[in-house]
Amino acid sequence: MSNITIQVLADTLKISKSSVSKALRDSHEISKATKKKVLALAAKLNYSPNPYASSLRKKKSKTIAVVMPEIADSFFSLVINGIQSVAEKKGYHVLIYLSHEKHTNEKNILNEIHNGRVDGLLISISRETRNGDHIKRLQAAGVPIVFFDRELESVHTATVVTNDLECGYIATKLLLQKGCKRPVFFSHSATLPICKKRAEGFKLALKEAGYKKKDIRIIYGTDSEKGNDLLIKKNISARKRPDAILASVEKNAIQVYIACQECNIKIPDDLKVLAFSNIETASILNPPLSTITQPAFEMGKTAATVLFKGIEKKHFQLENEKIIIPSVLIERKSTGN
Amino acid sequence: MSNITIQVLADTLKISKSSVSKALRDSHEISKATKKKVLALAAKLNYSPNPYASSLRKKKSKTIAVVMPEIADSFFSLVINGIQSVAEKKGYHVLIYLSHEKHTNEKNILNEIHNGRVDGLLISISRETRNGDHIKRLQAAGVPIVFFDRELESVHTATVVTNDLECGYIATKLLLQKGCKRPVFFSHSATLPICKKRAEGFKLALKEAGYKKKDIRIIYGTDSEKGNDLLIKKNISARKRPDAILASVEKNAIQVYIACQECNIKIPDDLKVLAFSNIETASILNPPLSTITQPAFEMGKTAATVLFKGIEKKHFQLENEKIIIPSVLIERKSTGN
Repeated sequence: MSNITIQVLADTLKISKSSVSKALRDSHEISKATKKKVLALAAKLNYSPNPYASSLRKKKSKTIAVVMPEIADSFFSLVINGIQSVAEKKGYHVLIYLSHEKHTNEKNILNEIHNGRVDGLLISISRETRNGDHIKRLQAAGVPIVFFDRELESVHTATVVTNDLECGYIATKLLLQKGCKRPVFFSHSATLPICKKRAEGFKLALKEAGYKKKDIRIIYGTDSEKGNDLLIKKNISARKRPDAILASVEKNAIQVYIACQECNIKIPDDLKVLAFSNIETASILNPPLSTITQPAFEMGKTAATVLFKGIEKKHFQLENEKIIIPSVLIERKSTGN
Repeated sequence: MSNITIQVLADTLKISKSSVSKALRDSHEISKATKKKVLALAAKLNYSPNPYASSLRKKKSKTIAVVMPEIADSFFSLVINGIQSVAEKKGYHVLIYLSHEKHTNEKNILNEIHNGRVDGLLISISRETRNGDHIKRLQAAGVPIVFFDRELESVHTATVVTNDLECGYIATKLLLQKGCKRPVFFSHSATLPICKKRAEGFKLALKEAGYKKKDIRIIYGTDSEKGNDLLIKKNISARKRPDAILASVEKNAIQVYIACQECNIKIPDDLKVLAFSNIETASILNPPLSTITQPAFEMGKTAATVLFKGIEKKHFQLENEKIIIPSVLIERKSTGN
């Protein structure tokens, strides 16, 4: 990793050292265009701040931050437990920040973290996040960062994810085996890599089964609970209604169940349901819910372990760590007998 | 509030100002006995640190902390949403710390918070916590504190709770109306005020119905999931098994459902189940779960609102705020038709 200093960045961009340093701190004195250039170059040259200064800072907080969209989701609460199991042994505190799926919140949180509050960051991005400048800025300030589950491909650092594409594929194959003709994929987001990959797996399985592009249906959820509820009810009550729903997140599966109850649609006879979910009550739902169960605890544990390597070892290359921990399909009654 | 200064505390206790100040910071240089004395006096005299120093400190962080036992529980995740709805409007960050039901963790977290990291604290204590010195210390350092749901009676500050005793009573009355003869109360903890009050309501209803003390059964859960699972299975499979379980927390209700499934015991025919719970899936469980539903979001919102009064108004008397927001009994099929 190198002798890239602020001086090198300044020389290359033909601006002052102080401007580079202000750009890296997201100062309002610097234009957006300049900030973009500085960040891009810092990322390209693998710039990291003075290791001594950074190690001084590191000695201070003994705290790592976890930034995630929400906690009312079994996946995220299990991840937290996995992270804390590692942090506890290291004598570190874990701060949990919630973005509530908003890019602005996530940006504010990362700015807050920027002022030396934490030694490292574990992040799963919000469904709105497409631009990664806020994350790159923190990275350029020398804070080790690991993505778990929801990565942002434009930011080069460690990722701990699951085999989303493959799972979308095997989930869809199961629905087809069960005799479904009109499955739909209910997607939490059109842009999140996890949703895109799950959707790709869904499409792949249908294409293999001879479906034409126009017959492959994906419904995109809204950011309001009410909106999703209406969307689901509209779809399951339509004349050409789906005979199976593959839900990309737990929350949507619960909404489908409740909507079916209200609309008197029988699962699995009228509609088969399968969800990406770690919900604890899957086996005691009516009917028990078939799930793609993610290795949530393991993912948290692994992400934290990798992060501590980044915190403890000066020359550890986080960007080489691309870890995939496979999920498991658990068949229950919601997909038929 | 008063002219109680460190000098007054020092004079009264006949020790140096520096010893008082170190005791309030929990310094290792000061003996346990002295710390206890200082804290007791500070609490008694309503000591609060220099308002100017404290207001300087307050300007710094724009952050409040929430310390809670866990997040894999719908109640706590809804509380968080309520808290954040208020904090967001105030432009404050919310840090979430989890004690995982351990007193030691809670103590470490509060020591961490002590160093000026936050402007206020919302706390729901761990099931192990009986001694409140760690909380009193933070209070003596001028950090406004509000308890939500799980208070500690020995610490005098604002509390936002629900009507636990009354709910334990009406829940038990319902079970008796449904024809139950041998109801048991499954308690998460023998010492937490919320559990004690819910148990009191349970006992009261049974006493009114003519039950003798020896026939009023309370089972105390362990701190391990496996332990609880065994305990539940032992009880529901016993010769003189209960015909109803009133669960003091959501997690235990889920465990009862899963245990019944495994032991082939039918809810509600063989066993009626009622739980203090905000679980989102209550209506789609098999069978739908009757719940005492707490006003979780409202409790979080109210607790945060009170806390901000304590943060913003120098002379606001937090200890006068004792807010009770009632819960609602929702009958579903797990208690019979």
